Amino acid sequence: MERGVTRISSSELSTGLGITASQIRQDLNNFGGFGHQGYGYNVDYLHDQIGEILGLTHAYPVIIVGAGNLGNALARYEGFKKRGFHIQALFDIDPKVIGSKTGEHIVRDMKGIEEYLKKKPAQIAMLTLTKSAAKEAADRLVKAGVPSILNFSSIDLAFPEENVIIENVHLSDFLMILSYQLEN
Amino acid sequence: MERGVTRISSSELSTGLGITASQIRQDLNNFGGFGHQGYGYNVDYLHDQIGEILGLTHAYPVIIVGAGNLGNALARYEGFKKRGFHIQALFDIDPKVIGSKTGEHIVRDMKGIEEYLKKKPAQIAMLTLTKSAAKEAADRLVKAGVPSILNFSSIDLAFPEENVIIENVHLSDFLMILSYQLEN
Repeated sequence: MERGVTRISSSELSTGLGITASQIRQDLNNFGGFGHQGYGYNVDYLHDQIGEILGLTHAYPVIIVGAGNLGNALARYEGFKKRGFHIQALFDIDPKVIGSKTGEHIVRDMKGIEEYLKKKPAQIAMLTLTKSAAKEAADRLVKAGVPSILNFSSIDLAFPEENVIIENVHLSDFLMILSYQLEN
Repeated sequence: MERGVTRISSSELSTGLGITASQIRQDLNNFGGFGHQGYGYNVDYLHDQIGEILGLTHAYPVIIVGAGNLGNALARYEGFKKRGFHIQALFDIDPKVIGSKTGEHIVRDMKGIEEYLKKKPAQIAMLTLTKSAAKEAADRLVKAGVPSILNFSSIDLAFPEENVIIENVHLSDFLMILSYQLEN
């Protein structure tokens, strides 16, 4: 789209994505197709349809819990807003950090998070607290009704009894993708 | 292993991983199997074998290029070392940051990176500079012989002509995994 391309084949997509054309067709067929044999894909239409699949047709209020280096980096990350992910507030438990400024946000006291969420419900919480503080914070977020958590702390979280979506991010995984390729 | 489990079935692994038992068996079979029907997997052996597949049998020297919030967070991230990823040095181009201390490292001047790499070759560079500075830095890293780059800057890098492994990380992808699940 950015390059003014209006129509694209699965093999052209393949070159850009590093996935086989047949895998691309198969993946998109799982969601209903969107292309036509011999024509390929209409880029605008495909972009809209993928956006709909991913739920990107509306904005998501996001909070960050943990205003250390990673929380700060996430608060300033430019890629989120254009996808509809709006950082609404940052929270921390550390008195040395509470009240400090991060980009356009003042770091709030975790003590007030339940009250804050009652007034301004968040759809997503990004959790960047240390291992020792992450579980308790996640419990509180789940209890306060946050429906999804992106967990960067180095402890795996799971709430099998609750109706909450947890995605545990392991930064080491990326390095292992590289070590695998370096080795093979 | 940490829980003292010595033997595990693919269905038990399935519960822990959220992947079907048949997918787990199929994936592991791609690398030669490691299990026995009716017995399952010997946990120690499986752990060693997966470590070997991922190339985790030796240490990898890693440098970080970009000592902003994300670079700092990565430098302090505790999960890397136990997998054998050793942060050796941090570099930046910003005079305000060069010379400052990050954990156990003093941020070095990017000007000296070629000379540094001649003496201490790195296997992996994590790139966290801003979009505008990332491409030039990556060019220099590739020219200096760094064989793999984990790119966190919000510009996709590719060196199709060079024998270098690039992994572009998009932090928004994690939020889209959540928005997809929230929507569906």
